[in-house]
Amino acid sequence: MPLSRTIRCTCIEISNQPVNPRSIEKLEIIPASQSCTRVEIIAIMKKNGKKRCLNPESKAIKNVLKAISKERSKRSP
Amino acid sequence: MPLSRTIRCTCIEISNQPVNPRSIEKLEIIPASQSCTRVEIIAIMKKNGKKRCLNPESKAIKNVLKAISKERSKRSP
Repeated sequence: MPLSRTIRCTCIEISNQPVNPRSIEKLEIIPASQSCTRVEIIAIMKKNGKKRCLNPESKAIKNVLKAISKERSKRSP
Repeated sequence: MPLSRTIRCTCIEISNQPVNPRSIEKLEIIPASQSCTRVEIIAIMKKNGKKRCLNPESKAIKNVLKAISKERSKRSP
């Protein structure tokens, strides 16, 4: 039963849409485990606090991670 | 007053110690913002649920992110 393997994953729908890094309040990365065999990346949005699951393999998430670290170096003195 | 700049950051102490990716339950990435001008990376540990702040510039965190994504590809069919 393939369903039982993923029943304890947090994400049901995974978005492939690009996300503006500035609109992310927080990013959660949940490693693969016995209860959910895939990595989950969850973006918590600033405006409504909603969670949005992102595809770890998408370019979008790589851009978000890059943007977040750039943001840091830009702002630090 | 440099303190007021960082007063709303989540992390007080930042660890440079390497972290075993397998012992991480969840990783939180909080982008820099007006209330905290640095990126914060927080690892929530499996065994006790404690939060541990990691240095975003350390090699440790890069290894953790790499290990987490490797874990995924290893486990997926």
